[in-house]
Amino acid sequence: MTDVLVLTERELRAAVSLDLDAVDVVERAFAGLGAGGVVMPPILSMAIEERHAEVDVKTAYVPGLDGFAIKVSPGFFDNPKRGLPSLNGMMIVLSAETGIVQAALLDNGYLTDVRTAAAGAVAARHLAPATVRRAGVLGAGLQAELQIRALALVRTVPEVLVWARDPAKARAYTERMAASLSIPVRVADSPEAVVRGCDVVVTTTPSRTPLIEAGWLHPGLHVTAMGSDAPDKNELAPAVLARADRFVCDRRSQSAVLGELRSAIATGAVPEDWPVDELGEIVAGTKPGRRSADEITVCDLTGTGVQDTAIATHALRVARASGAGHVVEN
Amino acid sequence: MTDVLVLTERELRAAVSLDLDAVDVVERAFAGLGAGGVVMPPILSMAIEERHAEVDVKTAYVPGLDGFAIKVSPGFFDNPKRGLPSLNGMMIVLSAETGIVQAALLDNGYLTDVRTAAAGAVAARHLAPATVRRAGVLGAGLQAELQIRALALVRTVPEVLVWARDPAKARAYTERMAASLSIPVRVADSPEAVVRGCDVVVTTTPSRTPLIEAGWLHPGLHVTAMGSDAPDKNELAPAVLARADRFVCDRRSQSAVLGELRSAIATGAVPEDWPVDELGEIVAGTKPGRRSADEITVCDLTGTGVQDTAIATHALRVARASGAGHVVEN
Repeated sequence: MTDVLVLTERELRAAVSLDLDAVDVVERAFAGLGAGGVVMPPILSMAIEERHAEVDVKTAYVPGLDGFAIKVSPGFFDNPKRGLPSLNGMMIVLSAETGIVQAALLDNGYLTDVRTAAAGAVAARHLAPATVRRAGVLGAGLQAELQIRALALVRTVPEVLVWARDPAKARAYTERMAASLSIPVRVADSPEAVVRGCDVVVTTTPSRTPLIEAGWLHPGLHVTAMGSDAPDKNELAPAVLARADRFVCDRRSQSAVLGELRSAIATGAVPEDWPVDELGEIVAGTKPGRRSADEITVCDLTGTGVQDTAIATHALRVARASGAGHVVEN
Repeated sequence: MTDVLVLTERELRAAVSLDLDAVDVVERAFAGLGAGGVVMPPILSMAIEERHAEVDVKTAYVPGLDGFAIKVSPGFFDNPKRGLPSLNGMMIVLSAETGIVQAALLDNGYLTDVRTAAAGAVAARHLAPATVRRAGVLGAGLQAELQIRALALVRTVPEVLVWARDPAKARAYTERMAASLSIPVRVADSPEAVVRGCDVVVTTTPSRTPLIEAGWLHPGLHVTAMGSDAPDKNELAPAVLARADRFVCDRRSQSAVLGELRSAIATGAVPEDWPVDELGEIVAGTKPGRRSADEITVCDLTGTGVQDTAIATHALRVARASGAGHVVEN
């Protein structure tokens, strides 16, 4: 008989917030990835064309943690027609000692939202300029909100510029953000205005054509591109990677298939064996972070299983300490 | 708010047995696989060397079913030293319409045991001779027991011969089986004695060297090899595949990597593009089953995601009808 702890989305939201604890937990997992010893297999991905849907499964074993997560992320893109969100899912946590199921985290994607934003904060902590005068964001959805809130955990953000394809969504974003961050948030006319006018830019769109051109890059700029997570998505023109002083990604093997490295290689903007630094190597200290105030840095985040294992074991620890959830005797 | 049904191993054992219902459910899923329309991605497999462990994740979308399963199968091979079983795991069931989590089946591998044995019955139904005088089994573990019980659902089995590397385990097997099936079960001296003395043989071992040689095959024999599910396992000598009149497998792409087709191709016993029939094609009627009383047939089962989706949706249907389980409001 073993006990399985079942936690609902409400209980998980109470246990885990997008705060420095979450950022530190995700940062330590990246350090493990950079230092070696992590086992992270390729993502299992199932496209269900007749449902206009895709299901991804991610996992990673991180030495030193007492559990590891397996995350199931379904995206059913006709759901909005039914008034339901496209993205859902859950995580299960297995014992790192025995493989026995410890917990089912029925988060409906909430923990993914948090760990994705937390990775943006980790990238900014190591790569963004020390002083940010203005931060920019492309896209006006949930991650546009969370990424800027995450950035504000590691840098003082005096002002935000937002651009989105739909101006009404950009305006709604300014209102939501002004309320939650109490700093000025303005709508920009174009992605170019965002890039030229900011020293940190986060791209959070599902775009299939590049939004940022290399000619707009300027000394001291840091760009985190977190929108692309599929072989048909692309937010940065291939020349952006070649033009930047540093290109960093969460996992080279994923960026080359699902992220910004894919189109840069495909178009010949960079060679197939282009050496890139991984975020985990920077966190672990084997590669430098930002090297000068003038450096132009780009970080591509595709989303990794280590982040899932990190946030899930963190959530389970917090929930257990507070006695949250429903124990199923199995 | 959606409801997630959590079912324990005890509740799942009460809901699902190894019976003709389970065999028919698995057979229909194979028919779907054979007819096309099924989406079944490659298995996600994570080897954790420092834990002497491996975790597999399987899934498949089967058109016509209202849900699909994602199965997590951890194997932690040091567990027996702690008095725990090596194999564990659970399944989750997602809505085929919306991807929303419908159920967590905390089966600790029970449903895998059932669907694996049920696939053996499907293979025997279509490929074993109509009249079985004696059935044989290599190995004396749980699948050795379940495979013979599954065979007995689709064929009259007057007598059983068992061989296992450890004679004590083979003797214990005869006692367990005599009690559950009330037919004579005898221990054989060698795999050769089993193959030569039986008209249906099921191999259920984790062997890494072949147990069955081609010279032992005889007219009318059917062999189901279900032990190999990894690139280092192998129960049949490569020449067995070439010598048989028919080689069938559950999924060619899996058999060529994890099953018996792998070593047959690697040793050159059969060409790399050797045409084989899949069990689903036979069930769907696009390929013939056994064609004559003298045919020598071999079926390799590596275990497929369609079986998991079939048994999980079946278990959920039965459990819901009986009001079993614990509903978590999420």
